[in-house]
Order: sequence, then structure tokens, then C-alpha cells
Amino acid sequence: MRIIVTGAGGFVGSRLVARLADHDVVALDQDAGGIPDLPHVTGLAGDLCDPAVLEAAMHGGCDAVVHLATVPGGAAEQQPGLARRVNVDASMALADAAAGAGEQPRFVFASSIAVFGAPLPASVDDSTPVSPTLRYGAHKAMMELWISTLTRRGAIDGLSLRLPGVVARPRGPSGMKSAFLSDVFHAMVSGESCTLPVSAGATSWLISVECAAANLVHALRADLTKAPPSRALTLPALRVSMSDLLSEIARQTSVSTAAVSYRPDSDIEATFGALPPLRTDAANALGFDNDGDLTGLVARVLELLARSGSRPRDFLFRSPER
Amino acid sequence: MRIIVTGAGGFVGSRLVARLADHDVVALDQDAGGIPDLPHVTGLAGDLCDPAVLEAAMHGGCDAVVHLATVPGGAAEQQPGLARRVNVDASMALADAAAGAGEQPRFVFASSIAVFGAPLPASVDDSTPVSPTLRYGAHKAMMELWISTLTRRGAIDGLSLRLPGVVARPRGPSGMKSAFLSDVFHAMVSGESCTLPVSAGATSWLISVECAAANLVHALRADLTKAPPSRALTLPALRVSMSDLLSEIARQTSVSTAAVSYRPDSDIEATFGALPPLRTDAANALGFDNDGDLTGLVARVLELLARSGSRPRDFLFRSPER
Repeated sequence: MRIIVTGAGGFVGSRLVARLADHDVVALDQDAGGIPDLPHVTGLAGDLCDPAVLEAAMHGGCDAVVHLATVPGGAAEQQPGLARRVNVDASMALADAAAGAGEQPRFVFASSIAVFGAPLPASVDDSTPVSPTLRYGAHKAMMELWISTLTRRGAIDGLSLRLPGVVARPRGPSGMKSAFLSDVFHAMVSGESCTLPVSAGATSWLISVECAAANLVHALRADLTKAPPSRALTLPALRVSMSDLLSEIARQTSVSTAAVSYRPDSDIEATFGALPPLRTDAANALGFDNDGDLTGLVARVLELLARSGSRPRDFLFRSPER
Repeated sequence: MRIIVTGAGGFVGSRLVARLADHDVVALDQDAGGIPDLPHVTGLAGDLCDPAVLEAAMHGGCDAVVHLATVPGGAAEQQPGLARRVNVDASMALADAAAGAGEQPRFVFASSIAVFGAPLPASVDDSTPVSPTLRYGAHKAMMELWISTLTRRGAIDGLSLRLPGVVARPRGPSGMKSAFLSDVFHAMVSGESCTLPVSAGATSWLISVECAAANLVHALRADLTKAPPSRALTLPALRVSMSDLLSEIARQTSVSTAAVSYRPDSDIEATFGALPPLRTDAANALGFDNDGDLTGLVARVLELLARSGSRPRDFLFRSPER
């Protein structure tokens, strides 16, 4: 299969691309630096908004697309015009280009739980209507409509996967308002102090990046004949409280939680720290899965941090998987 | 009130602008020719996709917008890139520009029953999910999401009105796949032969252009505190069969239906000729209304044709309203 991956140099994209060694992967990213240098990968650095870049990506055909490139939540609020062009206009054009270059190619779109907005209802399941409050969430919901329409027309075989908070993103500015969910891992592993913009009781929906990448691979080959007509699925996620997350990180690293403090920001708490119980029956029925439990999620994240060498000092690893 | 109307030189726009004599109207259209030359109207010819045009329109403030400009159904299929830029990208930018130029301006977006796609369920009401099949319908559904999101954020006070088939559009290429619904009026009034791309039993949802314009005026001042969170309303329409429509035109004009024949096209029949019973409780509760009955609808259309001088010969007018 010839698979085009956008945002292929990014945090999720690079791990996805590494898992697709059985395929020809065209790895598109704005920045050539992050694109994995692997035998099955053809790197393509360029702007998704440039029609010539889309043409270059599709030249040679298109069996599938995984569309990860995006201007994320916080950045989209600061650069609304850029976000609109990337997240909607160029994304629509990408789906059209894929339809033109392939025979009903599988098109996996990385949507987001931001389609639900804030405040959320007392629980979320497959019948919860989208109701975004962030620009980013609206862009994702709009693209879900485009994906389902092109699928209905037989132009693509589309699936929108709503990703929860993916941990642990690299340090540094990501444009993500939910960056604190990753920063807490880095801080604890490094023994640094950290102030969280939510309360100890804040609840989030989380997935490890390895589990997210595994779900995206599954999305490329899953049988979608029983997928809902919306072709939009909320990915299974673990609902985790900040205090439980900190305790588990502390348990597996033998690092104390003492250096972590809470200074809740009402907007961040409402958007990322008040996530209710979640049911994802449609996604589960199609074979998607979460990290299983908090122990597994934290272990996967810590293993990733250890491998990527992002920790300035050693720490005791007590992952049950090692 | 300073009201910006896009597509102001068009079929619906010019009639809307004429009804807004109590306000300052900025009438934006791609083509200067159709913009009504009236004392309360400032014409602005330009491309909606040009940020400088949006800026010029908003200069002086924005109390309300009625956004009619669009690349319609048939044209959108033929020029997908242009349609995407106008119907989505520029339309999103317009809503943002309005938010920036006013204090939560009322933003009335002309959506379409094309958001429902084909085939339709056995009946349509306010709970029917959007499920577009035309690109145009998807664009409209996506914009409804944008309007509701900006409203939820407090940036605008938005309302999307899903227009049914508006009759009778002028003759000539409109880019509308539903043009036959208007062409039949012109043909019968002119005593010309006409072949319809649907069956005699085909049912459509119709509204006269005067009734559509009246509903848009109402949308500018309606109390929306009880509007649904989606801020999207399907406008009340009359559900009319082609044979009943022809009979009523014949009755009011004393022209025979003999010159009208049917040669159904399965796509057109499915999209425009198979519209089921319609309930529009939410719109009715907010004060929107249809033409009342077929007699009134046909009378309004014939009066319009008589006024606009589009008929090449006189005909007997038997409208109950004259």
C-alpha cells in the first residue's frame, strides 16, 4: 500500500510512520527535520496549503491517507486565519486529492475530543452531539462532516478518529492548551517542580502515544462496514484524575509528587479537567482500544521518555512491562 | 442598523435589500450590475475571497450580516475548489470579520435543505441529522457548525436558515440543479414547451422568493433566546407535487399544461423530487412561515414574473390576491 501521512514528522506521526514498515509511506511534514529516516519512507517537506505539495504527495497514487497535520487548539486561537486554512481548507483539498489519486482510498482523519467543547454533559457516548467551543474543535467537527460526505459519495473510505489527550508530548511550545498533561510527566521524571493549571480532582481522557499510533494503524485496515454513517468515532481513552496520574507516575519512578502543585485556571479546568465518564461502544466494536489501565498507560509513557532520552537524570523504572 | 448583505445583487438578495429601507445596507456582490440602486444602499462590488473586500464591507461597523453569496449545487460539483473557497473558507472569514467589527452582530446564514442529502428518510423534522450528498450541502452543514460555534463563543448572534427551493429564479444558467422548479413557471407563462427532469408525482419543498426575503428580514430581528443550540433552522416550506404545481399555474394563468412533459432523471428525482413530509416546529415557534398554501405561492411567483416583465406575451391573471 502507498500511504500518505501528513504531520509525519510530529509526535504522533513519527511513531505511526515507524509502525508502517510493510508499506510505502509518503511522509509529509512542514519541517523536514522530524520526518523519520527509514527505508520504507519517502520524505516530503512542504506546506499542506500549497496545491503543488498535494500533487507531489499524490503522484504515484494513493491507497490510504492518515491526516495528522493540524494547527492545534491554542495556536488556532492565536492564528485563526492560518488555522482555518490548514485545518479546513487544505484538509478538504487533501481529501479531494486523495479521492482523485486512488480508488476510494482509506482516509483516516485525526479528529479530536475538542469537538465536544465545554461544558460537557454528565457523560459522553456515541450519541453525544458535537458542540465545540474552541476554533480547533469546530474545524475538526467540520472536517468530520466533509469526510462523511465524501465517503457517502463513494469518493473515499473515510474514518475520523477523535483523539483524547495524547501523552507525553515533547517539552516545549506545542500550541496545545492541554500541554500540562504531558509536562507533568517530564517534570516528575526530571525531578523539577511543576504547577498544574487544574485541580487535583481534575479528570482527563488520556491515551499513550504508542496506543494512539497503534489505533491509527488499526484504522488503516479495520473493516468499516459496520461503522456509523457519520464515520466519526471517539477513540477509547482512560479517564484519569490528576491525583491518580501523579500517584502512578510517582509509584513507577519512585519520585515524590511533592514538587507538583495545583493552581487551577477556570478555562483550562473546564476544557481539559472536567471530562466526564466516557463510553466508546462504536469504536470498541470496531477493534479500537485504550491503554487498558493507568499502570499500562504510565509505563508506556515512561518507557518512551527513557528511550527518547529526554530525562536529565536516571530514575528507577518499575514498569510492570519491563 | 448597518447591515451587510452578501450576494446582494442576486435573486434573493436584491429582494431582501429592497425590504431593508429602514437600515443602512452595505450590498456586497461579485457583480456590480445586480446591486439595487436605492438610497439606503451602499454598493460594494468585489470578491468575497479577497480580505480587502471583507475589510471594506466591515469598515464603519457591523450590526448584522445576511450571508447569501454562494457557489450553488451544480456549480460546486463542477468547480469544487472555487466552491470550497467561497462556501467555506471565505464564509468562515466573513463571520470572523463580522465578529471583529460589531458587538455580537446578528449573523443570518443562508443554509440549504441540501444539508439533508439523498435519499431522505420517510419524514423530516428538527431532529433529522444532517447527511449531505452534494458538496454544496456539505459546505452548508459545515458552515452551520461554524455559525453555532461562534455563537456559543459569544462572538456573533448567529442563525442558519435552511432554504428550500426558491421560486421563480430568473431564466438562464444559475448553477442550480433545481433550476427546473423555476423554469416550469417561465415556460408555462411564455407558452413554451418544457421537459421536466422529474416525474409528475415528484414532490419538492418550495417557497416564493418574496416569502424567503420576508423570512430573512424576520431573521434579523427575531428573538433567538429559544433557538436550538445548533442555531440551525429548516425554514417552513410547502411540500408540492409537480402535477399539483402545474395545475395551479395553469388555473391561475389559463395556460394549458399540455406543453409540459416529464422525462425523469434518477439523480435529479432522488435529490429534488423525493422530498418527504416536513415539520419545522422550531422555525414556526420563532415566527418563520411558508407561503401558506399553493394558491398563494403560485400567485406570488406569477406577480413577480409579471412585474419583472419576463413574459413575452400577456396572460390572464387570476391570482386571488389581485
